[in-house]
Amino acid sequence: MPTTRLVLLRHGQSQWNLENRFTGWVDVGLTATGEAEAREAGKRLKQEGFEFDLCFTSRMQRAIRTAHLALEELEQLWIPVERHWRLNERHYGALQGLDKKQTAQRHGEAQTHLWRRSYDVPPPALATTDPQHPRADRRYRDLPPDALPATECLKDVVARFLPCWQDTIVPSLRAGRQVIVVAHGNSLRALMMHLDQISEEEIAELNIATGIPIVYELDGDMRPLGHRYLADEKELAAKVAAVAHQSKA
Amino acid sequence: MPTTRLVLLRHGQSQWNLENRFTGWVDVGLTATGEAEAREAGKRLKQEGFEFDLCFTSRMQRAIRTAHLALEELEQLWIPVERHWRLNERHYGALQGLDKKQTAQRHGEAQTHLWRRSYDVPPPALATTDPQHPRADRRYRDLPPDALPATECLKDVVARFLPCWQDTIVPSLRAGRQVIVVAHGNSLRALMMHLDQISEEEIAELNIATGIPIVYELDGDMRPLGHRYLADEKELAAKVAAVAHQSKA
Repeated sequence: MPTTRLVLLRHGQSQWNLENRFTGWVDVGLTATGEAEAREAGKRLKQEGFEFDLCFTSRMQRAIRTAHLALEELEQLWIPVERHWRLNERHYGALQGLDKKQTAQRHGEAQTHLWRRSYDVPPPALATTDPQHPRADRRYRDLPPDALPATECLKDVVARFLPCWQDTIVPSLRAGRQVIVVAHGNSLRALMMHLDQISEEEIAELNIATGIPIVYELDGDMRPLGHRYLADEKELAAKVAAVAHQSKA
Repeated sequence: MPTTRLVLLRHGQSQWNLENRFTGWVDVGLTATGEAEAREAGKRLKQEGFEFDLCFTSRMQRAIRTAHLALEELEQLWIPVERHWRLNERHYGALQGLDKKQTAQRHGEAQTHLWRRSYDVPPPALATTDPQHPRADRRYRDLPPDALPATECLKDVVARFLPCWQDTIVPSLRAGRQVIVVAHGNSLRALMMHLDQISEEEIAELNIATGIPIVYELDGDMRPLGHRYLADEKELAAKVAAVAHQSKA
């Protein structure tokens, strides 16, 4: 039986990755490095002859632009690109915009680490009336306001992402479409956690490299047979170390 | 009664505009000038406070990238962008890829002018088996092959474009969505011809400037109350003259 292939791609470096600030749902742009990572991802996929039918991404420009730049390199800008809010990054609540070091100084290393790496402890929530709350953002006005998060832990991301996997991505895969998902560190961790049945403890150790395509092979039940990264081991290790280091701040 | 607003945008300069070659359905990229025109269009729209809900474009990268660059300037990359083949440029048949001057030398000025400016004389068709025929192009494989053109006159473009207007764009406008259509010289001429009830004779004289947003106000029956260009008269005249001159070869 033929297997189903699914490609995941984490967006390249954003301005706030560079500045070491909590980003979450703030719509920060890519840096020049991030743009180069996105183009490089497209080149790697092109080299292996990937032909996509459909791209899913979030409603945040760092993911959308990563998708566009990769698809441009692939000469596949013409495929449909669906921007799904459920693929957004984890909402970082009231920490959004704060410098990661300052946060550690203010709230303590232990508390900050808990907010960042625990599975089920969300940071302090934004008030519903906060102008930074997604209710105030035109891009989500097609959604019921009470569906929009004011803060999220990874567990919350898994819960809000899964319906997109079940109702939108899987039906496309089952229809035989070649799919690429371009998203964020935490929405992709949620997907990989689900696919690979990673435990709540183990998921803390999963750091996804930016700009390196991950190719899953799935069986007929959409369970993974395995996955590989389109990078050599040394390069991948360096990328993952950079991400892991960044999250130590 | 509130009017409905509709914005049209012709893509910026492409590589083959620059080289004076017949482009049609060949998927040529933008030049640096074309990219700058697209960004400038986004700035003009931003200055007037446009907030879009939905973008329609073609399946050709010069239009898609123009849409992306304009939306990036507007900080509205997150809106859905539908790539509709019916918004593609006119198919130029067997002339695609040829230099416009060479064509005039080979087939005569009069014949070439007829192919370019007549309403209902299409250029010689591509053979169905030609590797350049859209049947051979993966991006159209969701369509019935006999729907795909092997050559088109403007009349053909009007006929294939109209169903997209009637079935896709108008329902969005009627639902209250703010729509921008980013397309090509001839698909936009087809739309303006329909909207403004321009005659077959008059349409030959309509040259649409690249990269200048056109803002239509429509009544409840989707008939135009008028339109304006987001450029001053002098600038617009220079742009239109450049397009008209180019079409003289």
